[in-house]
Amino acid sequence: MKAVVVGGVAGGMSFAARARRLSEDAEIVVLERDRYVSYANCGLPYYLGGEIADRSSLLLHTPDSLAATLALDVRTGHEVLAVDRAARTVRVRELDTGREYDEPYDALVLATGASPVVPPLPGVDLPQVRVLRTVGDVDALSGLVDGGAGRAVVVGAGYVGLEAAEALHHRGLEVTVVELADQVLSPLDPEMARPVHEALLTHGIRLRLGVGLAGVRPAEQGPVADGTADSHPADDAGAAVVVDLADGSCVPADIVLLAMGVRPESTLAREAGLTLGRNGAVLVDEHLRTSDPAIYAVGDAVQLVEAVTGAPAVIPLAGPANRAGRAAADHLFGRSGGRTPVQGTAIVRVFDVIAAGTGRSEKALRAAGIPHHAVHLHPGHHAGYFPGARSVHLKVLFAPDGRLLGAQATGSEGVDKRIDVLATAIRAGMTVHDLADLELAYAPPFGSAKDPVNMAGFIGENVLAGDLTLWYADELDDLPADAVLLDTRSAREFAAGHLPGAVNIPHTQVRERLAELPRGVPVRVYCLSGFRSYLATRILRQSGFDDVRNLSGGLSTLRLALPDIALEREENLVR
Amino acid sequence: MKAVVVGGVAGGMSFAARARRLSEDAEIVVLERDRYVSYANCGLPYYLGGEIADRSSLLLHTPDSLAATLALDVRTGHEVLAVDRAARTVRVRELDTGREYDEPYDALVLATGASPVVPPLPGVDLPQVRVLRTVGDVDALSGLVDGGAGRAVVVGAGYVGLEAAEALHHRGLEVTVVELADQVLSPLDPEMARPVHEALLTHGIRLRLGVGLAGVRPAEQGPVADGTADSHPADDAGAAVVVDLADGSCVPADIVLLAMGVRPESTLAREAGLTLGRNGAVLVDEHLRTSDPAIYAVGDAVQLVEAVTGAPAVIPLAGPANRAGRAAADHLFGRSGGRTPVQGTAIVRVFDVIAAGTGRSEKALRAAGIPHHAVHLHPGHHAGYFPGARSVHLKVLFAPDGRLLGAQATGSEGVDKRIDVLATAIRAGMTVHDLADLELAYAPPFGSAKDPVNMAGFIGENVLAGDLTLWYADELDDLPADAVLLDTRSAREFAAGHLPGAVNIPHTQVRERLAELPRGVPVRVYCLSGFRSYLATRILRQSGFDDVRNLSGGLSTLRLALPDIALEREENLVR
Repeated sequence: MKAVVVGGVAGGMSFAARARRLSEDAEIVVLERDRYVSYANCGLPYYLGGEIADRSSLLLHTPDSLAATLALDVRTGHEVLAVDRAARTVRVRELDTGREYDEPYDALVLATGASPVVPPLPGVDLPQVRVLRTVGDVDALSGLVDGGAGRAVVVGAGYVGLEAAEALHHRGLEVTVVELADQVLSPLDPEMARPVHEALLTHGIRLRLGVGLAGVRPAEQGPVADGTADSHPADDAGAAVVVDLADGSCVPADIVLLAMGVRPESTLAREAGLTLGRNGAVLVDEHLRTSDPAIYAVGDAVQLVEAVTGAPAVIPLAGPANRAGRAAADHLFGRSGGRTPVQGTAIVRVFDVIAAGTGRSEKALRAAGIPHHAVHLHPGHHAGYFPGARSVHLKVLFAPDGRLLGAQATGSEGVDKRIDVLATAIRAGMTVHDLADLELAYAPPFGSAKDPVNMAGFIGENVLAGDLTLWYADELDDLPADAVLLDTRSAREFAAGHLPGAVNIPHTQVRERLAELPRGVPVRVYCLSGFRSYLATRILRQSGFDDVRNLSGGLSTLRLALPDIALEREENLVR
Repeated sequence: MKAVVVGGVAGGMSFAARARRLSEDAEIVVLERDRYVSYANCGLPYYLGGEIADRSSLLLHTPDSLAATLALDVRTGHEVLAVDRAARTVRVRELDTGREYDEPYDALVLATGASPVVPPLPGVDLPQVRVLRTVGDVDALSGLVDGGAGRAVVVGAGYVGLEAAEALHHRGLEVTVVELADQVLSPLDPEMARPVHEALLTHGIRLRLGVGLAGVRPAEQGPVADGTADSHPADDAGAAVVVDLADGSCVPADIVLLAMGVRPESTLAREAGLTLGRNGAVLVDEHLRTSDPAIYAVGDAVQLVEAVTGAPAVIPLAGPANRAGRAAADHLFGRSGGRTPVQGTAIVRVFDVIAAGTGRSEKALRAAGIPHHAVHLHPGHHAGYFPGARSVHLKVLFAPDGRLLGAQATGSEGVDKRIDVLATAIRAGMTVHDLADLELAYAPPFGSAKDPVNMAGFIGENVLAGDLTLWYADELDDLPADAVLLDTRSAREFAAGHLPGAVNIPHTQVRERLAELPRGVPVRVYCLSGFRSYLATRILRQSGFDDVRNLSGGLSTLRLALPDIALEREENLVR
């Protein structure tokens, strides 16, 4: 058996290593276009920012170490130009010498990855315009920083864009993030991404949301347009380039980092006539086989199945890539395998805020027309009576039958734990009832007797049982005209700022002050987090008020969803 | 509906609060013998140690706050003396006045909890001998510390005992922990508890394992026996009492804390003729109903079902107690519910070490005769190339069909997350194949593309597929006489200390040095963590060596299991 692997990073190298462990006899050749194999792709932004100080720690293996350990024939600087499926050979070019040769295979593994999206706009070929995908990319960016770059524009506010923005900020640059969507971190729902937005602003990162890139030009190319109110002052003194945005504004910069997502690198597969799926990704079965049974494909270039909805999914993440490589080797060497569904579990740290998600977002469920419920909560990451508890903003999405569809969390501690638990629960096909019943590790420094995940389950159960009906921040402007907006916080909290038009009955007084509320009209209740108002909704529902709803996540969520909301304070409108 | 609740802490108060939310009309009376209700039991050791500075933060609610919020009739200082099931009344004594009265009920909830085990030994009634269960207990202990206590003996090295030992150490006391078992933290397997053992020693806690308490006597009662080599010097100058141990040694002390576990407080239930289970715990069905359908029981006093084995279980933990209270209320008021299986998920922080477990330990599986496999691993808690990675010692137990049976983890970071994921996986009935396939949140500060939980799944899959056969540290003295013990670490690591009799072939040289190994004899391979030796076992297995086994968890686990092992260094034996 001779296996040839095209691409020597996550998925390809996982295949090769697993294949060797399963077969000492196999000949295993790994062809990598780049100079490096098996490097820590996900660590590149942290190396750029200086948090990973030692460049060599990114380089997990070399061809020599892989030969010694796993008897792999790893050839860097070798690009595969074409696949001859009939002959079962690949055409290879040795980049240093230009020499070309045919390499035969019994099994071929395409782990060609994905390449950063570079839109066909003026100036994207300027030397200041970079991407961040490889060791070479980070070396180039570091070189620009070391060369005195003072201002950076990062185009794209996804995971890589924000990690890079923080890194460049750490290196002392003035950073502007430009994003076409009207929020950062589009995989998350906007209210859940908002704490990241605020962390960026707090640390002096400038945000230009809802505007696209129009092009880049050398600064000396002509007069710079006046900055709009939202953009930088048009001060390009010393800046190398000017970034033009689609709204006519512009931003001077010494580095322009395009972090606009990635696109499957499937040229080889396409030219070989393999079946492609969405977005040009390679179509594979649950054993990672392409339409040619002698050819596997793994990693960012393939189309998998989304675990929650069963829809096709192209999710360029390291974890699924690694596991796919392993699964392909398992199949080739006769082990049971097959693990294609992906949830898109992902996490990012942006300054002191951590944001993570798994499964489908509410945006995605709405777009797909999938019926769902959403609950928001803000419990402490550990027992409130133990010092240092920090809020976890948690959102859980589930189907009308209770089955979990997705979860998102934002906060500063304990975010990764809750998302990992919820990712596991989603993988298991659990319901909100199961969440309520999970038995998680509790001691005061680590959690609560009722963990945030349990609490999400409790709320979900209440929704499904009809004991709790929620309203959402984005309904604020469309509340029924005759609705009573009831604030159940204390009089002092109410006085300090409440939703316009709200009346105040603290939750401890609801029972004796029922007569103050009109009958027969909708009541929309809220408090800070949703708990005191939940108690009030229970009292009202059982006291003859029929249409009573509780604000999901309370003012805490509403302020994230509607950051520009003007609260009313006694007689005065205040921000 | 009138519900009477006996006991106003975790389970009882969860019932009462949930009951009110489900029924505004119900009359809900909570009878609590103590002065306090709804206090943070699990926070008491941290308050004792000063980490929780504010005593009031332990007191989550008062009768007044519960009346205002939930319209509960909470009566502290009211002890229930008897249950008259025929009349559906309880006999109550108001402790301050001695007044007795009958309180009728439609539904009764016994949340009587558990009481610390106090063995019938001489001197346990001395004022220096205390337990730690209630706010009054912690006040008494704090009083002794404030009164100048300098030495403490903690009897029992379970969760509460160790938390209290650390707390007393923080308060400046010299602390000795006495434990009848030959390990600390008996719910864990000994090798997994060992890092906690070492943390205690590092911080100057004295450990007396494998010896029981014989009694306590006032220090002036007579001459103190000479300390044995393992015990304190017999210096009782100023000590209030002397603690006599079963081996004849003794330890002077000013505080003796009995932390020997708890016993269900089921006297009321027993005297009322309710069916009891193991250990005197109250037998309940999946809706927490006792043998009298008008009486529920929840919390530490009840016998539940162990989730993994289906065996009866009495597990006094806050999480299950809280959820049981909720489930009982759900059942009483017509919601679906029923959530009795418990896993015993628990966690403890002891100085800088965190130890946690869920499901069954290997000791427990062996004792129950349940077939199982065990794997050990020591991955970093996040990507190794990101600064600050710390090892998580992880042990996962699974059945021959792959189903998870238990997991334990010890370390300083990321322990709680992995145990929570594994607790969720166990609850879902997952297998090691499912662990291999979990899609957990990965960015360099949080995990690895192959998370420790995935890695455990990979190893488990290899074991089940027959690609990996393990040997264990406790087999070291019983290896086959003709076995070759093969150390696959580097020559330098080998020289610095290896297992007696081992030969060294670094894993990168195994292929070319096969001829050095005898054929037809067992080969027992090891390295530091088990990975390099795994690679070697795969080479050997595929090169005609039939009986090749890999040391589970490598020397890292072996040193935890056999802390007194004498490693061989070149020609010299060294510790």
